[in-house]
Amino acid sequence: MTTSPTEASGAPESANGFDAGEAGPRRALVVGTGLIGASLGLALRRAGWHVSGTDVAPGVAADAVALGALDRAGDDVDATLAVVATPVRAIAGTVTDLLADPARRPDLVVTDVGGTKGALVAAVDHPRFVGGHPMAGSEQVGVAGARADLFVGASWVLTPTDVTDPVAYARVRAVVAGFGAQVIALPPAQHDALVAVVSHVPHLTAATLMDLAAGVAERHAALLPLAAGGFRDMTRVAAGHPGIWPDICEDNAPAIVETLDSLIDALSAMRRRVAEGDRTSLLAVLERASVARRALSERVPRPEELAEVRVPVPDRPGVLAEVTTLAAELGVNIVDLDLAHSVEGLLGVLVLVVGSKAAPTLVDALLERGHRATAVPVGAGR
Amino acid sequence: MTTSPTEASGAPESANGFDAGEAGPRRALVVGTGLIGASLGLALRRAGWHVSGTDVAPGVAADAVALGALDRAGDDVDATLAVVATPVRAIAGTVTDLLADPARRPDLVVTDVGGTKGALVAAVDHPRFVGGHPMAGSEQVGVAGARADLFVGASWVLTPTDVTDPVAYARVRAVVAGFGAQVIALPPAQHDALVAVVSHVPHLTAATLMDLAAGVAERHAALLPLAAGGFRDMTRVAAGHPGIWPDICEDNAPAIVETLDSLIDALSAMRRRVAEGDRTSLLAVLERASVARRALSERVPRPEELAEVRVPVPDRPGVLAEVTTLAAELGVNIVDLDLAHSVEGLLGVLVLVVGSKAAPTLVDALLERGHRATAVPVGAGR
Repeated sequence: MTTSPTEASGAPESANGFDAGEAGPRRALVVGTGLIGASLGLALRRAGWHVSGTDVAPGVAADAVALGALDRAGDDVDATLAVVATPVRAIAGTVTDLLADPARRPDLVVTDVGGTKGALVAAVDHPRFVGGHPMAGSEQVGVAGARADLFVGASWVLTPTDVTDPVAYARVRAVVAGFGAQVIALPPAQHDALVAVVSHVPHLTAATLMDLAAGVAERHAALLPLAAGGFRDMTRVAAGHPGIWPDICEDNAPAIVETLDSLIDALSAMRRRVAEGDRTSLLAVLERASVARRALSERVPRPEELAEVRVPVPDRPGVLAEVTTLAAELGVNIVDLDLAHSVEGLLGVLVLVVGSKAAPTLVDALLERGHRATAVPVGAGR
Repeated sequence: MTTSPTEASGAPESANGFDAGEAGPRRALVVGTGLIGASLGLALRRAGWHVSGTDVAPGVAADAVALGALDRAGDDVDATLAVVATPVRAIAGTVTDLLADPARRPDLVVTDVGGTKGALVAAVDHPRFVGGHPMAGSEQVGVAGARADLFVGASWVLTPTDVTDPVAYARVRAVVAGFGAQVIALPPAQHDALVAVVSHVPHLTAATLMDLAAGVAERHAALLPLAAGGFRDMTRVAAGHPGIWPDICEDNAPAIVETLDSLIDALSAMRRRVAEGDRTSLLAVLERASVARRALSERVPRPEELAEVRVPVPDRPGVLAEVTTLAAELGVNIVDLDLAHSVEGLLGVLVLVVGSKAAPTLVDALLERGHRATAVPVGAGR
């Protein structure tokens, strides 16, 4: 743990800024400067970081410099934050090498943007690695599509575990939230199960639909001109870079297979309804789906009334992961997270800013699990 | 047939305008003034028509008047064009009643916008009915979503048959093309088979995916916040009005069931690839789909070099349907269509404007089928 006790007052001191006691700009390293890596570079530079970047493909980092996504092409051993945005199979080795390199800063925090998390996070297993996955940008390819605002409003999963250093987590979380993303903490295995449902299987389905239509179009040239907005929307992600998918499908095979089985079962039930003319059941499913889809369109409003939920964090690993993933599981949106230091022999106090209405739910669930959680309106008791 | 022989010159005279010898503005009637009907009203009024409209639901036609989509609410027996935009089950009866009404104009042409065509077109079976289906607007609901430009760039299927009056077809085609739509002529049964692939089954799949995710979300509140652009794109159509689907699924059950079977088979093959770690086969499908989807994004360019394909139309029904659907089947985009009168004892000459490169393909196919087709560059021989 890199946390050091500070002043003897109870006032929280932010550990998020990466800037306490440092001279000059905060330094970040982006490994892999494709679409996501270059977008990260743009967003980090906008937030005031000095960003270096590398890519195994010749010229890609130089292109990112030309786009303004990097201050310079090349490594930076002085970086305190490294973001690994390589293809998923290269991530674990890259992260491990970065954290094991004695030439680098001992407080270096590493995160990644890989689409699967279970195997990777288990392989790295390091306090200063925080697994991440921004849910953005799947159908674009290449550095030219990079945008500083790619992550604004996007969900960004972080996967803290029992070994994760809360300070490292708070730092990564602050950077990501600063990009305008909504941070959701999930256990790695749960991330993989859920993205199978909302990302991997939908992608495979889009590709399957497009391939099916392309096959019919070979016999009927009139087919594709009939493809209207609905079909175009449904198959858009299939235009994306196919090369990333064999790894994703291999890493997340169990969850993808299980979800594909559920989808095939559900489509078979749909087929039965159509074949048998079961109008009532057909309408019921479509109405349920319509209600669910319209609910999805309503952006979660940022709660106007906020509360701070304070959870003392004993010097026991895993509390951070437990608290943040519990909030996600309860559907409680963590608007902000801070780690306040303390003099009571504890590691610190985790300060979660949540909606006032959701605060009691979270507090009750935390108390049930043996935490000394309390909620106060934001601004109270300061 | 309402065609009458005209001047003894070989010069074509447009039969498309609805305005030869008429005083005052052309008059249209829209039956059913929901989203599509009101959008039709807006587009017709923009094109200079006087538009009346009715709706069985109280107040809906008045709302359309308030939106500027109709000149007036109510019937118009003087209309020369009626567009039926009711739910699909009400269309056949409405069209038949309009065409059988002795109070109406004997040259009244009727078209519709229903999502299935086979049963409907067979039920109406009238020279002055031209079945139609604009491929636009599926996820919006209600008159408030109406737009004059809803059809710009959209594909619009027309389903001429052996009994269709070429003059009626040319008139409807000209109106629809005037909205900025790309007209595609298809036999009714083929329309139904193809929309099962690009519209009906994709819609049912979107609803199934959304319903599946909503079920998982009941157990895992963190699921839906993870739904990024790809998932939102794929399920967008599922937000649409569920009420229209039991009829569509019943009318088009055979094609939908066949396509669902193909999709379920293809998804089962995808499941096998993932379960067995068959990376090569997985990548091959995804690459094929990616190429096909990117090709779909490239808009068909309007050919710079145009040719006129002239096909004498003997006084034998069905030639119009044969020629136009043949073009669609060959993938030949008909940029414009006109019906030129003639003095040679023929009904007239069908003038199809197509790309110069595609013209020989179409001419050869027509010659093979016994038609006296010729192609000339646009403007030549006038």
